[in-house]
Amino acid sequence: MEIEQGAGGKAAGGEGEGGNGVPVEAGAELAIASRILADLGVFDAAGHVSMRHPGNPQRFLMSRSLAPALVTADDIMEFTLESTPCDARGRTPFIERYLHGEIYRKRPDVMGIAHGHSPAVIPFGLTSTPMRATYHNAAFLAAGVPVFDIRDRFGVTDIVISSAERGAGAADALGDKAVVLLRAHGFIAVGPGIQAAVFRAVFTEISARVQLQAAALGGSIAALDAEEGRLADAINLATVGRSWELWKRRVTT
Amino acid sequence: MEIEQGAGGKAAGGEGEGGNGVPVEAGAELAIASRILADLGVFDAAGHVSMRHPGNPQRFLMSRSLAPALVTADDIMEFTLESTPCDARGRTPFIERYLHGEIYRKRPDVMGIAHGHSPAVIPFGLTSTPMRATYHNAAFLAAGVPVFDIRDRFGVTDIVISSAERGAGAADALGDKAVVLLRAHGFIAVGPGIQAAVFRAVFTEISARVQLQAAALGGSIAALDAEEGRLADAINLATVGRSWELWKRRVTT
Amino acid sequence: MEIEQGAGGKAAGGEGEGGNGVPVEAGAELAIASRILADLGVFDAAGHVSMRHPGNPQRFLMSRSLAPALVTADDIMEFTLESTPCDARGRTPFIERYLHGEIYRKRPDVMGIAHGHSPAVIPFGLTSTPMRATYHNAAFLAAGVPVFDIRDRFGVTDIVISSAERGAGAADALGDKAVVLLRAHGFIAVGPGIQAAVFRAVFTEISARVQLQAAALGGSIAALDAEEGRLADAINLATVGRSWELWKRRVTT
Amino acid sequence: MEIEQGAGGKAAGGEGEGGNGVPVEAGAELAIASRILADLGVFDAAGHVSMRHPGNPQRFLMSRSLAPALVTADDIMEFTLESTPCDARGRTPFIERYLHGEIYRKRPDVMGIAHGHSPAVIPFGLTSTPMRATYHNAAFLAAGVPVFDIRDRFGVTDIVISSAERGAGAADALGDKAVVLLRAHGFIAVGPGIQAAVFRAVFTEISARVQLQAAALGGSIAALDAEEGRLADAINLATVGRSWELWKRRVTT
Repeated sequence: MEIEQGAGGKAAGGEGEGGNGVPVEAGAELAIASRILADLGVFDAAGHVSMRHPGNPQRFLMSRSLAPALVTADDIMEFTLESTPCDARGRTPFIERYLHGEIYRKRPDVMGIAHGHSPAVIPFGLTSTPMRATYHNAAFLAAGVPVFDIRDRFGVTDIVISSAERGAGAADALGDKAVVLLRAHGFIAVGPGIQAAVFRAVFTEISARVQLQAAALGGSIAALDAEEGRLADAINLATVGRSWELWKRRVTT
Repeated sequence: MEIEQGAGGKAAGGEGEGGNGVPVEAGAELAIASRILADLGVFDAAGHVSMRHPGNPQRFLMSRSLAPALVTADDIMEFTLESTPCDARGRTPFIERYLHGEIYRKRPDVMGIAHGHSPAVIPFGLTSTPMRATYHNAAFLAAGVPVFDIRDRFGVTDIVISSAERGAGAADALGDKAVVLLRAHGFIAVGPGIQAAVFRAVFTEISARVQLQAAALGGSIAALDAEEGRLADAINLATVGRSWELWKRRVTT
Repeated sequence: MEIEQGAGGKAAGGEGEGGNGVPVEAGAELAIASRILADLGVFDAAGHVSMRHPGNPQRFLMSRSLAPALVTADDIMEFTLESTPCDARGRTPFIERYLHGEIYRKRPDVMGIAHGHSPAVIPFGLTSTPMRATYHNAAFLAAGVPVFDIRDRFGVTDIVISSAERGAGAADALGDKAVVLLRAHGFIAVGPGIQAAVFRAVFTEISARVQLQAAALGGSIAALDAEEGRLADAINLATVGRSWELWKRRVTT
Repeated sequence: MEIEQGAGGKAAGGEGEGGNGVPVEAGAELAIASRILADLGVFDAAGHVSMRHPGNPQRFLMSRSLAPALVTADDIMEFTLESTPCDARGRTPFIERYLHGEIYRKRPDVMGIAHGHSPAVIPFGLTSTPMRATYHNAAFLAAGVPVFDIRDRFGVTDIVISSAERGAGAADALGDKAVVLLRAHGFIAVGPGIQAAVFRAVFTEISARVQLQAAALGGSIAALDAEEGRLADAINLATVGRSWELWKRRVTT
């Protein structure tokens, strides 16, 4: 179970690993995901993205505490589902890693998670207006977007998801959905892969902007209904690579 | 009729063609149109633009399925008006090419078509507020901007214009206008040339932003009326080259 | 009176001129003004800026018809106050030069004029909400911002200020103010110098954005009153060089 | 007391100083703060930021009058708390330095001050809507955001904080808070360090944008309450270095 923690070289199973014990390809892809979300303005200096370990579903990979725009493969750490670093080597993990661990624990289908604080999304966690799927790219929102208000379970706090208990609260609020909003804090988007999680984080932010504008026009909004959303989301997942390749070029050249 | 499908060299009619059987100048101009619309933020990773074949009105030219920012002349394919590739050579066409084919079939005056998902335009397809021509650059909107709701003819779908039937539905909704909105999806802008289609796509997006702001001020909006729009559009079409040359510089140097 | 039309070299009065008969320093500064307004997004592909001739108040200088981002000193032409080119040399003037000429004719205090189509400004020409001076940088708006609706004097038109008569209509609507809005078209900002005209065009656009946001909050707006505006504008005019130097760096290096 | 005014070399206390008599490290950090706020769009051509002198609490450091994007360590001047330059050497100080001096005099806890005119913030100084702490990054707003209307104490003015009396008025309005708005002018953000002051200026602007959008959705806003804000602000202050390092990279490489 600990084979990724070797001093680099090849893992017992033959999969390539970097010097930090993380599978080379996975670490590189996760670092790119982090830089993409910073480049597109979804992440400020403090968002974070993770992926389930491709070789061990009881582990996940995530950057050390670092501005997401600066993350490279060398910054990726491995964690247990208790959000404990497998081999910290002096690196400081993100304080909010618990929201990742608790979601991976409760949602075996989730392979990637992004957490950010996009300004356009915050209003929907502060008001009673539910987020809608304003267009096909945001089809994953059509199933509903719950809001996690940390006050409901934990009273007055510093808002930070800094414990397994708080992480479990956020994971419970997420339920079986693709996105959960955190009141006065931000949002979490999940997906069946790291590219899908990034795609959903991006279009959560864009759809929020679209809905804010549609709301200003007044009247009802003919958003995607649940079944339209389910059908359109399947198309999005099948074609996510096109967006990924485009976004990747911007942060790797 | 199939002369563009030769293995490059000169066409029978003497017009230069690239190795992919597409007239050289037309392919280059269409690729620039694609990159312009991506550069100006009108296209995300998935918009597409086409032009009627300059030498054969029964054909149209369009990129293979590729992020529009990356399109070069080599990516341009030729299609029949049934949206069938004339010579695919292993390249994958856009799934939504049918909206282009069906419009070229029904509108002999149309020489260029752009389809995108600009966030500012989506709200007008979701609400009952009609788009207006907020200023001279958007004069082509003054004739009216219909909305195509795919549910009306096809019920619950994945929203994608992925068949000739759906494409015909969009073309019918467009009628004789310059722009049609697709509910929860995006818009289509057409013009008497590729430069005009690009110009109209750009100013559809900008006029949408202007109208969203004007709506927030409240009260009636003294937009261009149909006749003012018709007169101002003629000026725009006569001077579209100035915008084109400026935009082209940004994506060719 | 025609000394600037010599074939370059020194003017009779000893002032340096370029090959196009325009004073060298003035032509260079006007070209910078044009590029600044494009760089800051106040101008799209079709705005234009002019200055009164520094050596002859019966003349003004303005670029040939060209995207403002591309203007260099060589593109600057000289015009009479009838908006007739003094020496066109085959260059095409802007069709809307008449709005400049008629304002210079009626307002001897005006030394620079900018005309653009900023999306944020258009809504105030379409609705009954008057523009206000939302903060000190926009103090010049506190005296009032009239709207010129071309329909009132000319009926249904193509909106373009393409004749001396239409230019005179816009100049009459401007009156003794710093800015006039053109319905469904754009705005004109004037100043006692070219740098002041540029500053006012920039902050007309920014103040429009501020006011759109303040309007969305609802309730009354405690904008600058006329006397506060007069006092604050004097400070702005005295310190305009700081903004100018900063903006100039962006378009000259 | 005047040791920083030597001709460069080492100060008596052994702390390094630049040729302009300002501690080297402090001057460099303050110049970076200025460029960060310009780079992030919080400052236009005329914002300014200061820090209390690290070796003498009766002094503060601030740039000469210069566009904030252009400030380097050589531009930093030293001032008494009366806002008098200790050694001007021909350099022109900002006319509004008094707002800095008066706040340092009244608030011994304040070590850094930023004053800007962000368009998104202005509306909250013009209307009766109070600014709220829309998310954790803006936690410092939860204690309340007063508005200073210069008319209340000084009647009709040019709006500029150009005297000790006006500076004292702004400082009184600030009270013990982190941010004060200046009607029709801008805002002042203060912090227990220069990095905290910059962080607060940045997120004052972003939170303003979030609140403008939330207001457009209508209904009540579940912003951070005072105690949540106090707790979350402590986290922000402890982790401000991560944002600082990211922002610094953009203006130093």
